Amino acid sequence: MTRWEPGAAERLAQAALDLYAERGFEQTTVAEIAKRAGLTERTFFRHYADKREVLFAGAGALQEPMVAAVRDAPDATAPIDAVAEGLRAGAAVLEPRRPFSRQRQAVIAANTELQERELIKLARLGAALSDALRRRGVADPTASLTAEAGIAVFRIAFERWVDASEDRELSALIQESLDELRAVTAGARG
Amino acid sequence: MTRWEPGAAERLAQAALDLYAERGFEQTTVAEIAKRAGLTERTFFRHYADKREVLFAGAGALQEPMVAAVRDAPDATAPIDAVAEGLRAGAAVLEPRRPFSRQRQAVIAANTELQERELIKLARLGAALSDALRRRGVADPTASLTAEAGIAVFRIAFERWVDASEDRELSALIQESLDELRAVTAGARG
Repeated sequence: MTRWEPGAAERLAQAALDLYAERGFEQTTVAEIAKRAGLTERTFFRHYADKREVLFAGAGALQEPMVAAVRDAPDATAPIDAVAEGLRAGAAVLEPRRPFSRQRQAVIAANTELQERELIKLARLGAALSDALRRRGVADPTASLTAEAGIAVFRIAFERWVDASEDRELSALIQESLDELRAVTAGARG
Repeated sequence: MTRWEPGAAERLAQAALDLYAERGFEQTTVAEIAKRAGLTERTFFRHYADKREVLFAGAGALQEPMVAAVRDAPDATAPIDAVAEGLRAGAAVLEPRRPFSRQRQAVIAANTELQERELIKLARLGAALSDALRRRGVADPTASLTAEAGIAVFRIAFERWVDASEDRELSALIQESLDELRAVTAGARG
């Protein structure tokens, strides 16, 4: 029998991030993460497949509400506005996790393989938003183009949000980046 | 002494693509590629680090003229129009390689790891275009946002161009996708 550990996933994630920051991602072992969290390796593997998954386990928690927001936007909503609803839903999930997201970003920035994994995660998110638009009856290439432009906005707003010098909320940075995208595609000098 | 083989890189690339299409990427060996091309493994490794590089060796040949076109656009050119010049320069490199690009795309579509490699290549291209805009004096986040939007346009136009049912040139598909991006960001229904 395995004992239920309240908040084990969160404790393991925090212990992992602290160790990745202190020693580097490659140098940290699952045994060390479990020990730092005061849990067993067995408990670690009940929550995460490996030490990399600790950093990417949140992807589903982000994607589902984003896709749902695109799906549930009123029928008359333009594709870019439906995607904007999706981005705002993502911002609502991330906003309470800003300290964690900043710590996570520093770990990812230090490791090429993790950066590549992050790119792939964002591409999957883009494909999911594009599917959600197609299910709303938006044809291609409009669906893909709108979703990819939305992901570009999300990524750039996210990078600003995790920067230590930025204190505005993610939703405000997303709105600003969307406005900026409108201005640049219209040919503004920037 | 190694003998110079005229067109060896191209013969190896074509032999590799033919074998990847016939047997699958994973199942093909460098020995088989060299044999099909009528060359030695040693000659293969003078041109390519491994069998994956055959598919991605063209990235530099694409990136350099694209970055140069962004750099050399007249001073008064708006960022999105400088990026459009870059995309057109990329189209000029790719247009004569359409049959090769179609064959390559089919190989990549059948392999998740190759798809991920392609994403990473496009992200690097986006970063290079973004750098080129910053060197023109375009500030961030405008530089990143314009470059990433340009990459989204390029990727979607490219995917249409390699589709067997599409016969318009890549430059025309890029222009259409750029116009579409302008329309969707302005809120068109698509």
